[in-house]
Amino acid sequence: MKRSISCILIAVLVLSLTTACAKRSQPDPVADAYRGTVDRIREAGLSGERAHRILTRICSVGPRLTGSPGAAAAVDESLKLMEEMGLQDVHSEPVEVGRWVRGESAEAVLLASGTRAAMPLAVCALGGSVGTPAGGLTAPVVEVRSLADAAALGRAAEGKILFFNRPMDRRLTEPFAAYGGAADQRVAGASAAARVGAVAVLVRSLTFREDINPHTGMLKYDADAPRIPAASVATLDADRLSEVLKKEKDVAVSLEMDCRDLGRTVSANVVGEITGSELPDEIVLLGGHLDSWDLGVGAHDDAAGCAAALEALALIRDLGLRPKRTVRAVFFMDEEFGGTGGRAYADSPLRKGERHVLAAESDRGAFVPIGLAIGAAGSRALDKASGFRELLKPFGIAFIGPGGGGVDVAPLVARGAVPAAVLPASQTYFDVHHSALDTVASVHPRELELQAVVLAVLAYILAQEGI
Amino acid sequence: MKRSISCILIAVLVLSLTTACAKRSQPDPVADAYRGTVDRIREAGLSGERAHRILTRICSVGPRLTGSPGAAAAVDESLKLMEEMGLQDVHSEPVEVGRWVRGESAEAVLLASGTRAAMPLAVCALGGSVGTPAGGLTAPVVEVRSLADAAALGRAAEGKILFFNRPMDRRLTEPFAAYGGAADQRVAGASAAARVGAVAVLVRSLTFREDINPHTGMLKYDADAPRIPAASVATLDADRLSEVLKKEKDVAVSLEMDCRDLGRTVSANVVGEITGSELPDEIVLLGGHLDSWDLGVGAHDDAAGCAAALEALALIRDLGLRPKRTVRAVFFMDEEFGGTGGRAYADSPLRKGERHVLAAESDRGAFVPIGLAIGAAGSRALDKASGFRELLKPFGIAFIGPGGGGVDVAPLVARGAVPAAVLPASQTYFDVHHSALDTVASVHPRELELQAVVLAVLAYILAQEGI
Repeated sequence: MKRSISCILIAVLVLSLTTACAKRSQPDPVADAYRGTVDRIREAGLSGERAHRILTRICSVGPRLTGSPGAAAAVDESLKLMEEMGLQDVHSEPVEVGRWVRGESAEAVLLASGTRAAMPLAVCALGGSVGTPAGGLTAPVVEVRSLADAAALGRAAEGKILFFNRPMDRRLTEPFAAYGGAADQRVAGASAAARVGAVAVLVRSLTFREDINPHTGMLKYDADAPRIPAASVATLDADRLSEVLKKEKDVAVSLEMDCRDLGRTVSANVVGEITGSELPDEIVLLGGHLDSWDLGVGAHDDAAGCAAALEALALIRDLGLRPKRTVRAVFFMDEEFGGTGGRAYADSPLRKGERHVLAAESDRGAFVPIGLAIGAAGSRALDKASGFRELLKPFGIAFIGPGGGGVDVAPLVARGAVPAAVLPASQTYFDVHHSALDTVASVHPRELELQAVVLAVLAYILAQEGI
Repeated sequence: MKRSISCILIAVLVLSLTTACAKRSQPDPVADAYRGTVDRIREAGLSGERAHRILTRICSVGPRLTGSPGAAAAVDESLKLMEEMGLQDVHSEPVEVGRWVRGESAEAVLLASGTRAAMPLAVCALGGSVGTPAGGLTAPVVEVRSLADAAALGRAAEGKILFFNRPMDRRLTEPFAAYGGAADQRVAGASAAARVGAVAVLVRSLTFREDINPHTGMLKYDADAPRIPAASVATLDADRLSEVLKKEKDVAVSLEMDCRDLGRTVSANVVGEITGSELPDEIVLLGGHLDSWDLGVGAHDDAAGCAAALEALALIRDLGLRPKRTVRAVFFMDEEFGGTGGRAYADSPLRKGERHVLAAESDRGAFVPIGLAIGAAGSRALDKASGFRELLKPFGIAFIGPGGGGVDVAPLVARGAVPAAVLPASQTYFDVHHSALDTVASVHPRELELQAVVLAVLAYILAQEGI
């Protein structure tokens, strides 16, 4: 009985929190007008786990690396899914993309002058990396912590493998900030190293976890530097390598990778909508990216974003709601390798006469939603969305602030669309991000469904009210 | 590069959210005074994963059912842990508790009149249940959805097994509300059924998941009804049983359980503190419960609450902070079976001369903290804590509202202590709650550490400032 009293206490707490917060706010006629509809969307969404079934279908084709057969299969599967969900004007739009392949192998072996036996390191090629010469390359290793360290090495880097080993700063509470603070090593490390004569780079995987899973991700070669091979090292092996470098002299690594670029090819964005009943050319866009990395199946990154967008539209359609403006789902191709899909969508002749009022991008992991970012600080859009605070609070949306956007919708935002994003609790995102751990099983069906429900509420109200 | 732009965009979003919110609030001299200390606590906590190591140590003794050898071992291990963490006045305080044992077996088999073969059902005894007669009992099954349904059956229930099958309402966003709305079947179903002549009850497990894990939990026998055996049925098997009942006549279940009550015994609460430098008799209490259910190892429920409390004190101690008031960690015994530990603590002669200013109970799962509940609506305590909003926001604490408390601290709250609780994102809590899935691996080290850090900040500031 005590236990049930505990539950009741908690239920009362929840109610009293809601009530206390509601009392502090002014009554809002817009929010009041939508309360019944919001309840119906919530009940329809949370009754099931359809968003996760959509995600599973997308991931069933396997990894969806830009330009790969998997990505092509995902386009076909997505067209089918949108048709099955009863969307209108379901179609694909061409996107010219690059095609890089990981190849058959990525192997690194640590060789030390002491008695220590050769030690294999868990590595993977970074996206876009050139391969090593056939048979691999072997070179002494120098550990650095930053691009500036690399530049400062000067001639000491010649012929070496530079090992970028600055971890994500665990002390920051915000994982994206910790990621952003370390990602320059992955993105720009190879060219920084090549400029001082290095022959390859190893980069510590971007995750808080200590494990043996390497995390991939895109690198960028600068035009003014030789292109040298770049591999990501799992954090545990990065630590081991660093320890060996502290203790022994003449530490070398032998690296062999046969990843390579296969040139340009054509892929596609996938688009479907509920056409607006009164203002069909005004678009509320919900998007995610269909391409993924290839070590896992990109369930969080970003089948989840696509699934949440499609489920949001499916909920609106199921309930027979007729939005005044068009609500559109877009599965963008090639977010991970350069964002060509986002640019192709914005530049397409099909956009002629359309005006995107909102562009919401979901690409932060399929975790429980805790906030909403929308528009610029002080903007009318943010002000308007803030009026829905009480409607969204029961879904766990505890704050509404400026922000939103992302790689895929940036070209639309540049043309006046208001950016938005549902913000999930992403403390565990970089555990799986860009690694073999980004699997269907790592996504919780109810947490993903909550994202879809919040997107449906947001999209429907803004399709009715405009911004 | 696009990817890194995305990261930078997100980092900017985080900063701008923080800034925008900060601008809206008044400057707060108390918050400003603690900013440096709060940063040190955050950095010390998030640099490691010590809370999870403490949790692992507690769980290493195995399940800790009240009155069991495991619970006794957990008391010893906890005393060691508190000594190792450098707490002062580490001791145990006796608690008289009941001892119920699950026995060797809980088996249920579905028997239907059709051609269907006998089908085993995944069940477990509910905590406190009497066993069946040796050799078990077999009776026809009647499905009901509520206590009122059971009462309405009248004589039709005689000699039957009543099957309470009302699920947690998935449509509610708040899992504790859904749990609270279904738990009456588990707590009071047996006596409601016995009053109309039933011989046993089966109760649908309290979880949103559809799986084969039964979830246990306490039942309460009313004095005016016969004590009949009560078992929890895993949700998938509850669904299967319900389907068979719809399709076939003469559906019976054979149930055998040898759980039993072994009478009273003595256990203990475990207490340790950082004694206040100026007001040692004024106590800021952080607590969790040391006892657990016995199907898993009670990692979330509630080794996590104990670990978060101890880690909070360890962080304060590590940093050499000297709180004016006493900050005390209490690992309560017997939350799950009646809350005798909470009452024994409050009633102990050791409490003479002490005044508990705050009593924070952590028992909602070890998930990422998103809010803080403290004190009554409109209270000075809530008002004061709301002044720390900007200090706590960077930890993800998006709201501060009235509430807090729980079974263990209720007696202290009744005597004037302000209740408090860090509120985690608990959408997945009932997946594991009271089941074999509540394992060490189900707790994320960083999410738990964030709870400990928030508790440390809260405890330290309130120990300095009072309420």
